[in-house]
Amino acid sequence: MRQYMLIILTAGLFISGCVQPSQTVQTKTAAQQFVVNPIGKVVREDGRTFVVIEPKYRDGLLRLDQCSHLTVVYWFHKNDTPQKRSILQVHPRGNRDNPLTGVFATHSPVRPNLIAISRVKIISVKDNIIEIESIDAFDDSPVIDIKS
Amino acid sequence: MRQYMLIILTAGLFISGCVQPSQTVQTKTAAQQFVVNPIGKVVREDGRTFVVIEPKYRDGLLRLDQCSHLTVVYWFHKNDTPQKRSILQVHPRGNRDNPLTGVFATHSPVRPNLIAISRVKIISVKDNIIEIESIDAFDDSPVIDIKS
Repeated sequence: MRQYMLIILTAGLFISGCVQPSQTVQTKTAAQQFVVNPIGKVVREDGRTFVVIEPKYRDGLLRLDQCSHLTVVYWFHKNDTPQKRSILQVHPRGNRDNPLTGVFATHSPVRPNLIAISRVKIISVKDNIIEIESIDAFDDSPVIDIKS
Repeated sequence: MRQYMLIILTAGLFISGCVQPSQTVQTKTAAQQFVVNPIGKVVREDGRTFVVIEPKYRDGLLRLDQCSHLTVVYWFHKNDTPQKRSILQVHPRGNRDNPLTGVFATHSPVRPNLIAISRVKIISVKDNIIEIESIDAFDDSPVIDIKS
């Protein structure tokens, strides 16, 4: 009896159109994981800021000196703990007067994957060292990608 | 004798100022790796495009419905091979008329870490499903982060 009711209910949902197109994929689990290897790091020295790329990736910088700006993707490495990666809601900018908000609606440095994105101005590119104007990242932050 | 010459040479480099501030970190190797767990995927159906977030991350979407746009960070999963992750230079847009360019000066889908970034317009947010206007991503692309 319960089985029939379930069938009728499911059919009703489809007929009424209230099942969203993507309902079928909601319960799939993404079992796959991806591995990210840092390509460099943020270095702050004497009031200057650099993105230092590991020598083995230097060839990837060809013609970057012709760009004015750069998107730096880095890792919030200080927050790489299971506890901080499980936080899903925050008060933006750590201010309790800001209403609780999902991390995906913010740039919070705690989130499931600790990816940070900053658009920065390039000052110079010399060998594997990019001097940039400024970035909201700690010294030694691992850089995981850059894009023009 | 060779040792003295090395000391003199090194001292000379420092005095002349031609050692960049970050020279000292150039040879450090980033031994650490980071693990990225997909938080959802891109779904294309009937001419519509969705970012479907896994139910366990749904709380992270709180108040996203108040945003007009979204930065979607996804993974070029079709290129996740050691060979494609070792490519450091490309002809942009696969056009040989474009000069060879470092991947870090492009948005190439082959690069050491297969991170893609797109800014998209939100159409709606319902439960764990975000409908977006369009995105330059394959159906089923793993989404690894979103930001307002």
